[in-house]
Amino acid sequence: MDEDILYHLDLGTKTHNLPAMFGDIKFVCVGGSPNRMRAFAQFMHKQLGLAGDGEDLADICAGTDRYAMYRAGPVLSISHGMGIPSISIMLHELIKLLHHAKCRDVTIIRIGTSGGLGIKPGTVVITDTAVDSSFKPRFEQVVLDDVVVRSTELDKDLAKELLACSKEIPDFPTLIGHTMCTYDFYEGQGRLDGALCSFSSEKKLEYLKRAYEAGVRNIEMESTAFAALCGLCGLKAAVVCVTLLDRLEGDQIRAPHDVLWEYQQRPQRLIAAFILKHLGLCPPAGNKLFSTN
Amino acid sequence: MDEDILYHLDLGTKTHNLPAMFGDIKFVCVGGSPNRMRAFAQFMHKQLGLAGDGEDLADICAGTDRYAMYRAGPVLSISHGMGIPSISIMLHELIKLLHHAKCRDVTIIRIGTSGGLGIKPGTVVITDTAVDSSFKPRFEQVVLDDVVVRSTELDKDLAKELLACSKEIPDFPTLIGHTMCTYDFYEGQGRLDGALCSFSSEKKLEYLKRAYEAGVRNIEMESTAFAALCGLCGLKAAVVCVTLLDRLEGDQIRAPHDVLWEYQQRPQRLIAAFILKHLGLCPPAGNKLFSTN
Repeated sequence: MDEDILYHLDLGTKTHNLPAMFGDIKFVCVGGSPNRMRAFAQFMHKQLGLAGDGEDLADICAGTDRYAMYRAGPVLSISHGMGIPSISIMLHELIKLLHHAKCRDVTIIRIGTSGGLGIKPGTVVITDTAVDSSFKPRFEQVVLDDVVVRSTELDKDLAKELLACSKEIPDFPTLIGHTMCTYDFYEGQGRLDGALCSFSSEKKLEYLKRAYEAGVRNIEMESTAFAALCGLCGLKAAVVCVTLLDRLEGDQIRAPHDVLWEYQQRPQRLIAAFILKHLGLCPPAGNKLFSTN
Repeated sequence: MDEDILYHLDLGTKTHNLPAMFGDIKFVCVGGSPNRMRAFAQFMHKQLGLAGDGEDLADICAGTDRYAMYRAGPVLSISHGMGIPSISIMLHELIKLLHHAKCRDVTIIRIGTSGGLGIKPGTVVITDTAVDSSFKPRFEQVVLDDVVVRSTELDKDLAKELLACSKEIPDFPTLIGHTMCTYDFYEGQGRLDGALCSFSSEKKLEYLKRAYEAGVRNIEMESTAFAALCGLCGLKAAVVCVTLLDRLEGDQIRAPHDVLWEYQQRPQRLIAAFILKHLGLCPPAGNKLFSTN
């Protein structure tokens, strides 16, 4: 191709010097919410001790409102919206961007929110295997009108390294488990409180308990596609999500905003610790990495 | 339920007086991009001759960045992000909102963007039937770990009425056709320019031509779930999308920003004409409804 327009990122090979803009990126962090990914970039800016207070980071994708993208040193922080189709579009264009920019040895981590299964709300789950709604480690991709089954394996060493990092942040629990990925938040995750519901509370609990027994510790909506696409393209990938509630206890997310906000910072703090360690850096004095206050 | 928290809209039955806020809503318009749905609400504000210039409409979901919501008189304008999972979450919570607010006789219309098939870019397609990637009028919903097949029928009279409205706006073509809904923008829509591609240009064209022969005139990523969920909940629903390119001619969206922006206004102008007609109103003098200048 003479020109590659990354339409949903509002970037392109003729309009932007991608190697100059992104060639030194080593870590890419992705998550659903644009505000959260902006907050993460600001947090990383401070942790890396970069000049300025990081409050005025520019959205690199400002020309579109499909996704938001920020950078802090070698870290790129991008939103992906909700669900497999939305993250797939972003990943296709991000992976092309990394290719055009000639990036090397990039680690990509999804830092998200999820529903927990049999674990305390606020627990951070590092995914060992992403599974579908039948608890199988596979992602079914429609290619033209065929269905292709893809592996959802993630980098096991990276997961172990992240768990080791979590030991240094003692004020919240972190564990490794399977993550179930669904196409729907309500019926697809066995919620009784959607606009439609055709099953009983007993059927719901029976399903969620089966998921727990199969090793599932949290439920979200992007991990299988993320694992499959990153795996096929040779990116070292991890999924680290905080749980906002225990689905065995209920369906609605009832925690106050400030509690949810603190929960959402937990994966960010873990990933910041991991990145600093990899860069051989220490967190700046008085930083908030290892404390919530 | 004692309280219903519409988490992704940041609204709830205890924190908000939903009947007072929304009880008089008669038209709900939904589309992927928050900026576009804000622009549509501003446009409707002017068309309805409401007080003020409509430039400072408040985002009713300002407490979250998952979706954006604006109102102009009896018209609600909401973004849904990209893909079936994202629109499904919004629709579940929107339909509960309309129920709690005791709304009656609501018409819901998706105004979106799409890829065209064998038609001139800029053409507006009113969907008669939403079909899946096998050209079948069905939506497969995972419920717990079962798959339930749902009808994707839309309101035929509403589609005809919208086509009749389009005759009054002569500066762009509008037609009725099938709309294909996919889970992916790249491989799922037969694009050759994703990060991955495992098929040839010949296979792609063979697939797209089969879609054309099956009656498909445009391709997007939300219509089957939208049709299924609205149909089951008794909402009169339509899908009206402009086409940004002809997929038989290429994969990349190469039109300049100003051309794409004008294209995106076309479904908005058509729906504005429809809403004004239903309310027995005429567009204000000097308005831009029937002209692009």
